[in-house]
Amino acid sequence: MTGRSVEQLIERFHAGDRAALSRILSYVENDRPAGQRALALLYRDTGSAYVIGVTGPPGAGKSTLTNALVRAYRTRGTTVGVLAVDPSSSLTGGATLGDRIRLLENFNDDGVYIRSMATRGEMGGLSTGVGAAAHVLDAFGFDAIIIETVGVGQDEVDIAELADTTLLLQVPGLGDSIQTIKAGVLEIADILVVNKRDILGADDLVRDLRNMLRLGEHRKWTPPIVETMALRSENIDGLIAEIEKHGAHLNDTGELQQRRERRARHEVLRLARRWLTSRLSDVLNEPDVRAMLTSLSCRETDPTHVAAEVARRAAREQARAD
Amino acid sequence: MTGRSVEQLIERFHAGDRAALSRILSYVENDRPAGQRALALLYRDTGSAYVIGVTGPPGAGKSTLTNALVRAYRTRGTTVGVLAVDPSSSLTGGATLGDRIRLLENFNDDGVYIRSMATRGEMGGLSTGVGAAAHVLDAFGFDAIIIETVGVGQDEVDIAELADTTLLLQVPGLGDSIQTIKAGVLEIADILVVNKRDILGADDLVRDLRNMLRLGEHRKWTPPIVETMALRSENIDGLIAEIEKHGAHLNDTGELQQRRERRARHEVLRLARRWLTSRLSDVLNEPDVRAMLTSLSCRETDPTHVAAEVARRAAREQARAD
Repeated sequence: MTGRSVEQLIERFHAGDRAALSRILSYVENDRPAGQRALALLYRDTGSAYVIGVTGPPGAGKSTLTNALVRAYRTRGTTVGVLAVDPSSSLTGGATLGDRIRLLENFNDDGVYIRSMATRGEMGGLSTGVGAAAHVLDAFGFDAIIIETVGVGQDEVDIAELADTTLLLQVPGLGDSIQTIKAGVLEIADILVVNKRDILGADDLVRDLRNMLRLGEHRKWTPPIVETMALRSENIDGLIAEIEKHGAHLNDTGELQQRRERRARHEVLRLARRWLTSRLSDVLNEPDVRAMLTSLSCRETDPTHVAAEVARRAAREQARAD
Repeated sequence: MTGRSVEQLIERFHAGDRAALSRILSYVENDRPAGQRALALLYRDTGSAYVIGVTGPPGAGKSTLTNALVRAYRTRGTTVGVLAVDPSSSLTGGATLGDRIRLLENFNDDGVYIRSMATRGEMGGLSTGVGAAAHVLDAFGFDAIIIETVGVGQDEVDIAELADTTLLLQVPGLGDSIQTIKAGVLEIADILVVNKRDILGADDLVRDLRNMLRLGEHRKWTPPIVETMALRSENIDGLIAEIEKHGAHLNDTGELQQRRERRARHEVLRLARRWLTSRLSDVLNEPDVRAMLTSLSCRETDPTHVAAEVARRAAREQARAD
C-alpha cells in the first residue's frame, strides 16, 4: 500500500468512516507497514480517550461487565471503543467471537465500536498490537476505551500498563481466586470488582479482599471494592463513579501523566527491540555468518565472538537505515 | 576479576580441579564478565559430551530417574555431569536442594558432578545460563550431561533445544498428563518414559501414548516407549540402550550435527539480542531521549519516530564497541 493511499484512508478515518477504522485496525493488528504509517499520522490525535482495563479469571463475568459498562456509558452520551483480547489458545477459556457478536447486536449505535483481537502468544503477554489498536480508537474520537482480557499469566500485568484505570474482577466460588490474587496481581488493580454478589461466598470474598488490602503496602490510592451484578446491570453506576474518582485522583496527583509517559516509554522500547531483533535474524542468514555458525561446530571460534560480530553487523545496518 | 586470573582459573579447571569448575559455573550462572571470558576460553574443548534432557510433569519421578541413570552410567565407567534446573518459584513443585544433596551423597565419586540451577523467570523459559553451564561441564570432560527440568510452560521446548536426546517422563494417575502432552509437547520427545509402571493405569497410559504416536505426523524417528521403575532401577539398562540407539540414529542421519548447529545459532542470537537490548535501555536513559519521550505526551512526535531514533543510537553505540 502506498503512502498516498494510507493518507486517503486517514482522510476517510477522520471523516468518521467506520470501514476505514476497521481497515486501519487490521493493518495495525497484523503489523503491516501501512499500519505503522497510519499510526504515525494518527498519533497527534490521541490522548483524549480514557482507557479502562478489565481483567480477571475465566468465568468472572468480564464480557458481561464490559457489556453493562458500555450500556451505562451510552446512556450518558459517552462513546466507547472496546478491544476484547481473546487468547489464541482455546484451552484458556475466554469469550469467543460468537459472544462478541451477540454483544454487538445490542448496540446498533455509532457511539460504540467493538473489536475482537487475538493475542499471538508473543513474549510478554498482550501483543504489542493491542496498545497500537487503542491509539487508533483514541484517534477516532471515542471518549472511553475498554480493553478486556482474561487474566492468564503475564496478561494482567500488561493490561495495567495499557490502562488508566484497571478493574480486577473477582467472583465468589472460584476457590483459587484468592490464591491467584496473592501472586502479585493485586498491585495492578485500581478497583476490585466482586461480581455476582448474589452467589454464596460473596461476603467472605469481600472480607478476604479487604483484609488483604489492609495487609498490603500503604499506597497513595487504596483500591475500593465494588460489588456488582453485571448480568442485571446492578451497581454499574456505582462502578462508574469509582472509575471517575480514580481518574480524578490520577489527574490531581499527576499520576495520569506519569502512567502515560511510562506507557510511551515501553512502546518505544518494544518497537526498537523488534526492529533490532529482525535485523539480527537477517544477519544470521548472511552467507558468511552462516559459515561462522558452521565453524562453531569445529570449535574454530566461540559463540561470544560470533554473537559480537552479529550484533555489530545488525547495529551497522540499523544505523545506516537513516 | 582480571583476564589473567580467569586464565589461572582455567588452568586449574583443565587440571581437573572441581573447585575451579564450581567457581566457573557460578560466574556463568550469574552472568558475570568472568563467566563470558571463561566460556570463550573453554569453548574449543566442548563438543564431545552427549547431552540428555529429562523432563516431565511434577511427580513423574525425574530426580529418581536421573539418579538411576547416573548409577547405571557409573557402573559402565561413563562420567556424568548433572544440571538440575529448579524453577525459582516454589509453587511449581520440583526437587529441592535437599533432594539434590541426598542424591549427591550416593556418589562420593569423581566421575559425577551435580549442580542445582535456578531459572530466573527469564523470557523463554530455561535461562540462557543452562546452555552455558552445559558447555562448562562438557569442556571439563564429562562423557554424558543430564539436564533435568520440571515440565512447566516453555521449559520442555527449551530442553529439546539444549539436549541431543530428550526423555519425556509420563506417569500413570496424574490424570491430565495426556492433556499436557497434547499441547505439542510430544514433538519434543525422542524417548517416552512411562515411569512407575507398577501403578494402576500404566498399561492404559502406554496404550494411549502408542495411539497418539500413531496419529502423529510421520517422522524419521518414532519415539520408543520405555517402561521403567526408577526407584528400583528397573529397566534403566533398557532405557540406556534406547538412548544409544537414538544417538546412533542422530549420527547416521547427520541430525546430530544439525541439532548442534541449530543450538549454536540460538545461542548466538540470544547473546546478541541481550547486548542490543541492554544498549537500548542505556539509550532510553540519555537526557535528550528522555526529553523526546516527554514530548510524546504533547503529541509533538510519535512513538515510531522516537523508536527509530533510539534504535539508531543503540546501534551506533553497539557498532562502535569494536
